[in-house]
Amino acid sequence: MKEQYLMLTAFFFNPQGDNRMSWRYPSAAGKEIYSLDYYKKLAQAAEGACLDAIFLADHVGIWDSYPSNITHYANSRLEPITLLSALSAVTSKIGLLSTISASFSEPYNLARALASLDHLSNGRSGWNVVTSGMKEEAMNYGRDETIEHANRYQRAEEYIRLAKSLWDSWEDEALVMDKASGIFANKDLVHHVDHNGDFFKVRGPLNVPRPVQGHPIIIQAGGSEDGRNLAAKHADLNFALLRSIKEGILYREDFDRRLAKFGREPSSLKILPGILPIVTDSKDELAEKQALLENLVPEQVGIDLVSSWVGMDLSGYPLDGPIPELPEETNFNGQRTNLVKIKQYKSEGLTLKEVARIVSSAGSAPTVGGNAKEIADQLEEWFKVRAADGFALMFPTIPEDWMRFMKEVMPELQRRGLVRKEYGPGTLRDRLNLPRPVNQFAAK
Amino acid sequence: MKEQYLMLTAFFFNPQGDNRMSWRYPSAAGKEIYSLDYYKKLAQAAEGACLDAIFLADHVGIWDSYPSNITHYANSRLEPITLLSALSAVTSKIGLLSTISASFSEPYNLARALASLDHLSNGRSGWNVVTSGMKEEAMNYGRDETIEHANRYQRAEEYIRLAKSLWDSWEDEALVMDKASGIFANKDLVHHVDHNGDFFKVRGPLNVPRPVQGHPIIIQAGGSEDGRNLAAKHADLNFALLRSIKEGILYREDFDRRLAKFGREPSSLKILPGILPIVTDSKDELAEKQALLENLVPEQVGIDLVSSWVGMDLSGYPLDGPIPELPEETNFNGQRTNLVKIKQYKSEGLTLKEVARIVSSAGSAPTVGGNAKEIADQLEEWFKVRAADGFALMFPTIPEDWMRFMKEVMPELQRRGLVRKEYGPGTLRDRLNLPRPVNQFAAK
Ligand SMILES: Cc1cc2nc3c(=O)[nH]c(=O)nc-3n(C[C@H](O)[C@H](O)[C@H](O)COP(=O)(O)O)c2cc1C
Ligand SMILES: Cc1cc2nc3c(=O)[nH]c(=O)nc-3n(C[C@H](O)[C@H](O)[C@H](O)COP(=O)(O)O)c2cc1C
Repeated sequence: MKEQYLMLTAFFFNPQGDNRMSWRYPSAAGKEIYSLDYYKKLAQAAEGACLDAIFLADHVGIWDSYPSNITHYANSRLEPITLLSALSAVTSKIGLLSTISASFSEPYNLARALASLDHLSNGRSGWNVVTSGMKEEAMNYGRDETIEHANRYQRAEEYIRLAKSLWDSWEDEALVMDKASGIFANKDLVHHVDHNGDFFKVRGPLNVPRPVQGHPIIIQAGGSEDGRNLAAKHADLNFALLRSIKEGILYREDFDRRLAKFGREPSSLKILPGILPIVTDSKDELAEKQALLENLVPEQVGIDLVSSWVGMDLSGYPLDGPIPELPEETNFNGQRTNLVKIKQYKSEGLTLKEVARIVSSAGSAPTVGGNAKEIADQLEEWFKVRAADGFALMFPTIPEDWMRFMKEVMPELQRRGLVRKEYGPGTLRDRLNLPRPVNQFAAK
Repeated sequence: MKEQYLMLTAFFFNPQGDNRMSWRYPSAAGKEIYSLDYYKKLAQAAEGACLDAIFLADHVGIWDSYPSNITHYANSRLEPITLLSALSAVTSKIGLLSTISASFSEPYNLARALASLDHLSNGRSGWNVVTSGMKEEAMNYGRDETIEHANRYQRAEEYIRLAKSLWDSWEDEALVMDKASGIFANKDLVHHVDHNGDFFKVRGPLNVPRPVQGHPIIIQAGGSEDGRNLAAKHADLNFALLRSIKEGILYREDFDRRLAKFGREPSSLKILPGILPIVTDSKDELAEKQALLENLVPEQVGIDLVSSWVGMDLSGYPLDGPIPELPEETNFNGQRTNLVKIKQYKSEGLTLKEVARIVSSAGSAPTVGGNAKEIADQLEEWFKVRAADGFALMFPTIPEDWMRFMKEVMPELQRRGLVRKEYGPGTLRDRLNLPRPVNQFAAK
């Protein structure tokens, strides 16, 4: 059996880091976040350290429902497929994972763009399937309101199934390109998908040959029942927000049960909790940095963030009072995982101000701080007890935390044999020990 | 006034050239047409010769309605936005023009991807707006039939208007990013577009700042009445298929009249006829190459191509007989320019076989063959009498014709002062003397 490494992917929630106001951090980049050079340097540093992948967050709209939006924080960013395509030309081994909504695009276009990125990158593409829970997003696509939660996930499920068919529509041996006979392709190996479902009707075939990886890596990051079932059915990776090793072990067990229902092996799905790594030389430096980060965030930004997570405007409530009555989860149309987190804080008796501070500075992922050795110890512990197959590295500040992690923590993990020292040949799928999908048409 | 150069853009109809069966040409590339390296070398050679732009054709489906499709010819290709994004990382000055359908995608997604490409490339993006006239395309997007011709163009017109609003939704000065005050953006300069039209409803703003060029270059290549009006209203460039200088002069006059109706200067729209450049040392070599090219094309491919242009299967008709009765142009739902061309050949008394040969080997653009001096003479003549502002170079074979043109013809054109010797600073728009669009929100 091949050695199993800890999988690490470096996450861009915002271009300058996971902290909501990371753009304001002293060493944060300015307007160059809208140019290639900024990402090129970061991606090349990550590749130099043998990281598995970089991973872009995305939303399809500007949040502007609450007072601090745009003025203090705007989630504007380069479009992920164009950015990853550009990065595919200046890197050669690192995985390129993109968040893309399955709610507001044509499956033929997206399947094709991802197939094309997989060719351009020589088998390094991945798709984090999200369903877009913000009203601001829906309003850019002809709607007045978000698509209903269950409906979003049914649609996403059909979308992924259809994308997989399109990727399979050219069998691996379909291209002939024999100049002497003039035969370009073997027609018997090129298939209509003839998809006619609840949400989509698509004939196919795709107009790009089968992706190098067979299918790009599929990632899912929704923690609700529907989200987890989608992951268990279709995903290669699951990104999760887990607060402790114990939570991680339970989450893994839950997933193993779900995977079994779909006839899948536990090893076919890797779970990567998000963590906030901060490399520092001392405890004092860490405390100082965390204080600095908290102070970057204007109070209104924190309150607005909580408002958006629970789908109601909390601006009017007393800052030092309790969180008011929140909506029921069952009919909640936003991101349920977020609502549940806030309910948890509420039940712990935290005030609005306290919750706002937690959410805005640290998100809901645990901080993993310390020097290289201390951080490696923590990652190793999660990994060894199977609370995690790896991590989504949600650096609070970029480039600072990103660069220090690559320079200091990666060599330490390499010394311990937890991550690879060189990439070796093959695709991203190969490196992650994930099997190349069987072609559904060839199997017939 | 700035010097006006002849604008040249190198066209990929197929990855290996404009000839339908160019993949079969002795020096044609094999499966590497699905990898970045192939395009990188070609783009860099073009950039080394100071060409204005490269330009990708595109369709959103595989043609498979006729017997020779797929077997001898499949229009599979990398997706253009991903490919151009990758190329943006390995070039720095050459323009990156992509054909993208306005019939089968969400305006928010496309406006955003193009804005992002414009940032990644530092102001070098352009969009050739097509409306997708093939049934095989419509069937990949929930339809059984092509959208009706007039309707396609109305939709495209609204689509472009909407994309322009989205590009304007962040004014040039909107980004503040002042770390001290914590002000990220000036909210007053970020706008909803609140578009509510016949085809689309989109709130905005876009989640990418305004493109470096203000708007990417808009290109239009439809020759019908509706197509020309769309170009006169919105486009910076028009690609045309014109068979002679005389046709070019009339076409220009026609456009100047249309532009005047929309209050636009003649200089605000450049017309670029397509030509098939073949650089050879001698007349014999040219004749030999043309014969070789013709022989690459199986007869059935030619017939099927004519069938697809006129929207009826001509397979059953005698090869040496006349073209049968063809559909009326007024209600024709396919590409009307193509239908009209075939009608013209029919009226000239050509047989089905002859028309199939012309269409399949030479398309409907004129061949411009000879040595560097002879080719430069021809281009200069079109340009001097204002029959063309430049050319879309539809090389019959790539890399052969492409590379010879860059190496031999470009220096000759440079010697004559017809094209630039170095790019100089600025965006693609700057180099083409096209004004940066005024922001419609700023103007208010
Ligand atoms: C690590 C991580 C990254 C995520 N990235 C995105 C993102 O980039 N865009 C997005 O719309 N949602 C993102 N999500 C949200 C999830 O897709 C999902 O909507 C959310 O976790 C709520 O789950 P639910 O929809 O199953 O209720 C992310 C979630 C996690 C845990
Ligand atoms: C040089 C040139 C390149 C073109 N490239 C494409 C293309 O890549 N994809 C496409 O669907 N149509 C392409 N077209 C077709 C035009 O967009 C248009 O549909 C066609 O010329 C018929 O015109 P009409 O639609 O106005 O009747 C091209 C046309 C020309 C002249």
